[in-house]
Amino acid sequence: MLAKVYVTLKEGVLDPQGSAIQHSVELMGIEGNSAIRQGKYFEIAFNEDVSREEASSTAERIAKDVLANPVIEDYRVELVTSK
Amino acid sequence: MLAKVYVTLKEGVLDPQGSAIQHSVELMGIEGNSAIRQGKYFEIAFNEDVSREEASSTAERIAKDVLANPVIEDYRVELVTSK
Repeated sequence: MLAKVYVTLKEGVLDPQGSAIQHSVELMGIEGNSAIRQGKYFEIAFNEDVSREEASSTAERIAKDVLANPVIEDYRVELVTSK
Repeated sequence: MLAKVYVTLKEGVLDPQGSAIQHSVELMGIEGNSAIRQGKYFEIAFNEDVSREEASSTAERIAKDVLANPVIEDYRVELVTSK
């Protein structure tokens, strides 16, 4: 069982790293895109004997308490059976 | 049109940041997960007048040339019509 956690900045929170990437892309002459925002992505691998419910609640807890800062970031947890 | 780009370390590449998170999680007494790996996540917003094909090739180029290091990282591009 694998949990995929996506952490993104909330709407309205400034993203200087994303802006810097967008600026680089423009300097390279690539056109058509208007904005790039950076987020984080995590894969949590669970032991074989962990049930789907346990994995879901554990992944949710890890995302909330460790991976994301709920003040400025949103997170989304997705469970997949195999890698 | 929005492109989502997922960048992950290739199998076998050491991930000290992921290991540090895993260690913290263990110290917090959370059990059942065996490994955490960290990756990156980007959202590229395209202008309205850009076709799906253009968006796809531009996102692919940005991912390959700017966002990922192909020596140690894999990337995956996903196009979504609305946010």
